[in-house]
Amino acid sequence: MGSIISDSQEARLLCRRNQLTNTAGVAPGYLQANLLVLPAKYAADFHDLCLRNPVPCPLLGVTAVAGDPKSIRPAQCIQSKDFDIRTDFPRYRVYSSGTHIDSRCDLLEAWTDDHVGFLIGCSFSFEDALTAAGLPPRHQKTGTIVAMYRSNIPLLPAGVFTGGYCIVSMRPYLPEQIESVRQITRLYRSTHGEPVAWGWDGAMQLGISDVGKPDFGEAQACGVTPQMAVEAASNKIDGLVFAHEPGHMLITDWTSEDLNSLKHESI
Amino acid sequence: MGSIISDSQEARLLCRRNQLTNTAGVAPGYLQANLLVLPAKYAADFHDLCLRNPVPCPLLGVTAVAGDPKSIRPAQCIQSKDFDIRTDFPRYRVYSSGTHIDSRCDLLEAWTDDHVGFLIGCSFSFEDALTAAGLPPRHQKTGTIVAMYRSNIPLLPAGVFTGGYCIVSMRPYLPEQIESVRQITRLYRSTHGEPVAWGWDGAMQLGISDVGKPDFGEAQACGVTPQMAVEAASNKIDGLVFAHEPGHMLITDWTSEDLNSLKHESI
Repeated sequence: MGSIISDSQEARLLCRRNQLTNTAGVAPGYLQANLLVLPAKYAADFHDLCLRNPVPCPLLGVTAVAGDPKSIRPAQCIQSKDFDIRTDFPRYRVYSSGTHIDSRCDLLEAWTDDHVGFLIGCSFSFEDALTAAGLPPRHQKTGTIVAMYRSNIPLLPAGVFTGGYCIVSMRPYLPEQIESVRQITRLYRSTHGEPVAWGWDGAMQLGISDVGKPDFGEAQACGVTPQMAVEAASNKIDGLVFAHEPGHMLITDWTSEDLNSLKHESI
Repeated sequence: MGSIISDSQEARLLCRRNQLTNTAGVAPGYLQANLLVLPAKYAADFHDLCLRNPVPCPLLGVTAVAGDPKSIRPAQCIQSKDFDIRTDFPRYRVYSSGTHIDSRCDLLEAWTDDHVGFLIGCSFSFEDALTAAGLPPRHQKTGTIVAMYRSNIPLLPAGVFTGGYCIVSMRPYLPEQIESVRQITRLYRSTHGEPVAWGWDGAMQLGISDVGKPDFGEAQACGVTPQMAVEAASNKIDGLVFAHEPGHMLITDWTSEDLNSLKHESI
């Protein structure tokens, strides 16, 4: 496509029609969201998990009424009345007992009245800001995926969601760039915010013994911590779980400025 | 005093007049708050620290305008127009470079136009709920202080606040009581919520090798994690820092129901 898609609603419509296959760089300035859809009986626990672990699991929005795929709370997240969580991601995954069993263009047949959808922040937004400041993440220049590791920081448990760990990504910078990187990413409070650790001491504190050996390969992308939390609880979860296909996010109507204003309705 | 003080505003007025010396059990149903007062230039970083670590540092309210001791945001926290953060705690502590140098009945002379106050949730509220459910914490029965430990879970850093750790408290229960304790405390999302770990495996995961040797003695009480975070950053902080005297909390107008309603203004 020759032109840049700058409008969030236009981008969602293209995703709905499956005319976009990767949302990286689409509608710059608008936050992109990962997806997790759970049976309603686990929704309160998962909501708690996000509120207790906002850095690895930053909650942007939740379906306002269980079973209703068309409205998101808070209202600023998706302002369009023409929205459907079952179609407006370009691609979805289906999980059963923690295993990826299928990928689909929509969830129209899979979604039931008993489902609740959660929209979770993604690191694309702060990566754009780093690039704009002359500090592009290396993996963007090399065309590879960001290095990800399982840290030894436990996710603080919530109901059935016990036993998870924070999954961290790593972007290499020079020591003298670290404070700039911290300042730029700090503003993105709802999409992970500033780094949780840096330097060799930081890697050691996270229990990462070899930064040259990431724990996740090409198949993974951001939104991994909440997915791993669901996988860790898979023996306690009946029914199907849905998620976005990695790299195939939802374009929201949130901008960073919206999220940094301190007076919005709590989620 | 013969009668139970049931009204939050009445309790604050007694604290202002220094007629109450311990707020445990006062105005049941109303949340009590710890205090941290910082020079304004560190306020944004400390606010971030709380938002990034809501379980150990649960933010209940913040002074609405830097330097103004009389209004708290969100408005539900303190509804009375007759409020003053400099007097309405029964007792205060003064810290310089992380060291407790003085205790005072008020902060009228110490407070300046450059100060910002933070109100932080305290575990008294969920302890009352545990007692009401027939699961009183042991330290209440023995009249001792709750056992506290430095865990190996790092506080996720925010600006100048780096190098802190989650301080945890421990209440002994039988294995078959754990799920009840989790369910009861889970509702107290804004005052620590459900336990972060349990059992011997849980203690090991937190890096606690001997539960018989708590890291904090009689002089400490809740609100320790944010205070330790400030202490860890003391070489980066100029000026005086103020806090509540342990056990001498502020009675707020919040109830647990207020905090569990999902639509209040974000802090």
